[in-house]
Amino acid sequence: MTEIIVQTSSRSQLIDITKELKRLIRKNEWKDGLLAVWTPHTTAAITVNENADPDVPADITSFLNNKIPKNWGFSHMEGNSDAHIKSSLVGCSETIMVEDGKMLLGTWQGIFFCEFDGPRNRKVWVKFISNISM
Amino acid sequence: MTEIIVQTSSRSQLIDITKELKRLIRKNEWKDGLLAVWTPHTTAAITVNENADPDVPADITSFLNNKIPKNWGFSHMEGNSDAHIKSSLVGCSETIMVEDGKMLLGTWQGIFFCEFDGPRNRKVWVKFISNISM
Amino acid sequence: MTEIIVQTSSRSQLIDITKELKRLIRKNEWKDGLLAVWTPHTTAAITVNENADPDVPADITSFLNNKIPKNWGFSHMEGNSDAHIKSSLVGCSETIMVEDGKMLLGTWQGIFFCEFDGPRNRKVWVKFISNISM
Repeated sequence: MTEIIVQTSSRSQLIDITKELKRLIRKNEWKDGLLAVWTPHTTAAITVNENADPDVPADITSFLNNKIPKNWGFSHMEGNSDAHIKSSLVGCSETIMVEDGKMLLGTWQGIFFCEFDGPRNRKVWVKFISNISM
Repeated sequence: MTEIIVQTSSRSQLIDITKELKRLIRKNEWKDGLLAVWTPHTTAAITVNENADPDVPADITSFLNNKIPKNWGFSHMEGNSDAHIKSSLVGCSETIMVEDGKMLLGTWQGIFFCEFDGPRNRKVWVKFISNISM
Repeated sequence: MTEIIVQTSSRSQLIDITKELKRLIRKNEWKDGLLAVWTPHTTAAITVNENADPDVPADITSFLNNKIPKNWGFSHMEGNSDAHIKSSLVGCSETIMVEDGKMLLGTWQGIFFCEFDGPRNRKVWVKFISNISM
């Protein structure tokens, strides 16, 4: 497992980690298989979405913040239950196909780290499983 | 990686692709491992749900359309931010167990392609990772 | 594939299955690879979230029940369309990294079975894919 560090700068934020994942695949010469991407935090997530227009990740965070507000009569005393809920809805991982040393992504797809309770110093874990049945 | 083409006919629609996936598994003689199913679009998704009563996928799309409306004060100029949000909440992929040449699915489970910004000509990518530790 | 039985006791409930998964990994001597965890039900899900403070899973279920109510003008006659929607939003599976015979989880992360239409006798399926490229 390889660890990536992501430094976030606001409470809610989507950060594009596609380039860093590509760099890891090249560096480790991962060729054909599945790339598991996982964040070990319970108030963050991993998602795939458009990374061309920055309005797309901005719309995602503003909509989620409006519909899943920080204050809503939650029981959990830390005041971040909204972030835990967003984490379970978006999901803490993605499993990505790799062929010829490249992630198979659509033209507009990028991989994002989703911060829901920042700013914080965050981790993303990456593990490659090689395909033997090529 | 093998590509499936899905032609959608309305803006929001769940299309059952279970039979097509079963056909690919048989044709390629995939026996034991994990089947990665991924859509390369950022306004679509893959989900698993009941494929017996067509009211179930219809209820899913009508509820999501009501709660995540097309017009909501979004910044993204293309007018489909709702579809991007639905894509991140439902998720663009599923990773499915295969044994004895069959997907391990519950009695009522089917695999659906989710269109959130159609009608369009869409793709689903499929990749099999064989298990060596049987 | 190995099956776990989960007995739920209310309509909506998150049940921590982390210990049971750890026990299976030890018993089967699974060392390095990916652990696929899947529930074969269409009104249930698998999620990863904090398992330290029981208020976190309680806040998740109470928020989801408030925003995705049982009665909402659904078409599906069985009266559990809300549970089908929650299942597609949270997702019926997780794919978890395993190294040195242990799941790679964050300090506060646990694996939960999510019941959305209980109480019922439920199943969770587990399959390990070994990594040959260690």
